[in-house]
Amino acid sequence: MAYKKDENFGEWYSEVVVNSEMIEYYDISGCYILRPWAMEIWELLKEFFDAEIKKLKLKPYYFPLFVTENVLQKEKDHIEGFAPEVAWVTKSGKSELEAPIAIRPTSETVMYPYFSKWIRSHRDLPLRCNQWCNVVRWEFSNPTPFIRSREFLWQEGHTAFATKEEADKEVLQILELYRRIYEEFLAVPVSKGRKSEMEKFAGGLYTTSVEAFIPNTGRGIQGATSHCLGQNFAKMFDITFENEKGAREMVWQNSWAYTTRSIGVMVMTHGDDKGLVLPPRVAPIQVIVIPVPYKDSDTTAIKGACESTVYTLNESGFRADLDTRENYSPGWKYSHWEMKGVPLRIEIGPRDLANQQVRVVRRDNGAKVDIPVANLVEEVKVLLDEIQANLLKTAKEKRDACIEVIHTWDEFTTALNNKRLILAPWCDEEEVEKDVKARTKGDLGAAKTLCTPFDQPELPEGTLCFASGKPAKKWSFWGRSY
Amino acid sequence: MAYKKDENFGEWYSEVVVNSEMIEYYDISGCYILRPWAMEIWELLKEFFDAEIKKLKLKPYYFPLFVTENVLQKEKDHIEGFAPEVAWVTKSGKSELEAPIAIRPTSETVMYPYFSKWIRSHRDLPLRCNQWCNVVRWEFSNPTPFIRSREFLWQEGHTAFATKEEADKEVLQILELYRRIYEEFLAVPVSKGRKSEMEKFAGGLYTTSVEAFIPNTGRGIQGATSHCLGQNFAKMFDITFENEKGAREMVWQNSWAYTTRSIGVMVMTHGDDKGLVLPPRVAPIQVIVIPVPYKDSDTTAIKGACESTVYTLNESGFRADLDTRENYSPGWKYSHWEMKGVPLRIEIGPRDLANQQVRVVRRDNGAKVDIPVANLVEEVKVLLDEIQANLLKTAKEKRDACIEVIHTWDEFTTALNNKRLILAPWCDEEEVEKDVKARTKGDLGAAKTLCTPFDQPELPEGTLCFASGKPAKKWSFWGRSY
Repeated sequence: MAYKKDENFGEWYSEVVVNSEMIEYYDISGCYILRPWAMEIWELLKEFFDAEIKKLKLKPYYFPLFVTENVLQKEKDHIEGFAPEVAWVTKSGKSELEAPIAIRPTSETVMYPYFSKWIRSHRDLPLRCNQWCNVVRWEFSNPTPFIRSREFLWQEGHTAFATKEEADKEVLQILELYRRIYEEFLAVPVSKGRKSEMEKFAGGLYTTSVEAFIPNTGRGIQGATSHCLGQNFAKMFDITFENEKGAREMVWQNSWAYTTRSIGVMVMTHGDDKGLVLPPRVAPIQVIVIPVPYKDSDTTAIKGACESTVYTLNESGFRADLDTRENYSPGWKYSHWEMKGVPLRIEIGPRDLANQQVRVVRRDNGAKVDIPVANLVEEVKVLLDEIQANLLKTAKEKRDACIEVIHTWDEFTTALNNKRLILAPWCDEEEVEKDVKARTKGDLGAAKTLCTPFDQPELPEGTLCFASGKPAKKWSFWGRSY
Repeated sequence: MAYKKDENFGEWYSEVVVNSEMIEYYDISGCYILRPWAMEIWELLKEFFDAEIKKLKLKPYYFPLFVTENVLQKEKDHIEGFAPEVAWVTKSGKSELEAPIAIRPTSETVMYPYFSKWIRSHRDLPLRCNQWCNVVRWEFSNPTPFIRSREFLWQEGHTAFATKEEADKEVLQILELYRRIYEEFLAVPVSKGRKSEMEKFAGGLYTTSVEAFIPNTGRGIQGATSHCLGQNFAKMFDITFENEKGAREMVWQNSWAYTTRSIGVMVMTHGDDKGLVLPPRVAPIQVIVIPVPYKDSDTTAIKGACESTVYTLNESGFRADLDTRENYSPGWKYSHWEMKGVPLRIEIGPRDLANQQVRVVRRDNGAKVDIPVANLVEEVKVLLDEIQANLLKTAKEKRDACIEVIHTWDEFTTALNNKRLILAPWCDEEEVEKDVKARTKGDLGAAKTLCTPFDQPELPEGTLCFASGKPAKKWSFWGRSY
């Protein structure tokens, strides 16, 4: 690694995603190639999430990539939010199309005309769609692999219910799954909360999210969002049903998504100056086994012990692999697999062979321990669980150490300059957030609300908003963000 | 069903894919919505195929949707083949892009500049990439759900080897997996063979395919293709490696794909005037259980028996479901699930309850049989296996009955008019195929080669080409095609 995380964070990040073979830069700016080391993580997350939402009776759909201008513009706030980033197809072969066709930036307008067609009676509800697909948002700000790319992969869930209660309930069920993806799989601590009116989904009723924080840059990052759309799209797209009494009502809708951005957040959170650090639950390889022969040592026996180790671990359900490449030294291999973030390295040399043990080295803290071959499976399991827990714990401590509770505008600007995750009492007025944005504009971007966390500290009566001086209604996280 | 398969095939097909809830027509011509009844089949096929190619050490990738004009045009034959169908993005938001950007019609040109970068040494080979994604071909001929759509889903495998032998071997390994998808899963008989020079992949060395045939329209249909690209793209994209002796060589490449078209071929093959007929291995629901209460019968006991039946079947690994909707009659439900093609229907009424049996009805042939509850799992397994085998057998008999061996031009045109699958001795000259196409032009489309089957009948010495009168070199399938 040429760059250090604490010195040149941006360059460090680019280097680590490329050198670990997750990403290859592509010749169109803002587009990236996802290599197996990233895609295998995406597949592991997908396997978990897809099984969970199928338990919630979500069904798989695939809607078209394209949407007509007419339909895209039906919901005014929605199109205002997305219009500047929409990519338009205007030609096929050498012919101009009759009318330009948009590439989906998200699929509300693609799907909802058909919801209107499919939903007739209360018996057709709830309707629950999910698709795994690519979407395109042709952004001009600073492209960054995973974090901000013009095309990305995601799942998008779209559901319609007879009642607001059912919709509200699902918003939180999905948000909890997103929390689990971040905390249980990616070992990234997140705050569940609600977005402000300014920051909510364009055209929706309210937005909940899981928010992560990157201490190095002092920026919040939206991890995933679960929106209640209310009846707004139902009105625009005429999605109604006949209730049990024979009257027509509008449906209540949700939409929710998480993207390949999640992988980038994980890289930023755990990576170090040796490269990636992968949580065991998402590591494509959890244990890499490396033979360490000395001069005159019995290479056949060592190779056999390595193969047997990998075999035993794979049989027990671990993802283990062997690096027996002959043209690379053990030291080169150590660095290589450290760069790729593999949680455990097992070294087997003549002394290990003689003692019927293996040497195990942790990627997260470098700790080394000798394990008797007889206890291999049990001890590896314990170590992987420890690493998973330790990564989350360490990340949480670092994140929490950045939280700063402030009460005044001066404290706010100081904390912002110090790259803190700011928790501030707020009056919850849209005009005030606009004003904060205007007053903090600059090269680094304006400050804004990240979320109002569900987990609210006590708000003593008489507490005033840090920005407006009006009575505060809640504690909200503020800061710059990705 | 308003239309009959043998009378109005085209209308029948549209009706069956819509009424079975596989497809919804979309407001952009040539784009279709894939609903759960189609997507669940796609997921089952994907699960099988993805596991098989992972055994062959294929790795998951995701390359961008977009490709620059410059790169797309690098391989001349390739771009000539695809150029008329390429969709171009020229605008984002309200701004014109500096240069138009193509949406991938296939990803050879997207990927191979990076193969060139990643492959340095023989140790980097073989390189094996697969991605599951959408591609866009803006065709103007007759769009048909699944069969010919402007956007479709597929997997595309792209591999690079040090030797032609390895590439040749993989071409056939993959082709065999495609045969298994069609014959073992979709119960659609296919012929493995090689495409003619005119019909091979644009820019490739040779193309193999599995070819199906639709008796109702007398058209062949390409089921999936496995191409050896030779060293042609390697030359254009400079993909070379240092061999073990230190010399530079060009790699040998393959690409191969199958698409959502496969689902359409299955629908056309097995469907009947009652709707879809699904082979058990791909049916999202294999067994539908329907309570059939009479007046005064014990509905609670019947419902209990139905639930217990579904539970037992699901526990044994079958995909069973229950239709207890109260506002529909049993007769309505029978038609509904027949339309959706569910392989087995189980009816449970008071008499069944009294006799500790269930009534089972096959979708493929309408046969009814009473099964003792005690034998449920065993008998359902046998029946599903029988249905799977019977569908393939019946389809094969129908396909084989269409094959006509011809020797002369007159026999050829007669067979073509009779919608036969024509097996003809051919001189294998490109000019002759061009000539046949020119001479058979018409409203129904020209005749062409479908493939030269690997399974070749004997070709007696002195046999002449049906079209040119020159010595024949092989037997090839000819006909009109989708």
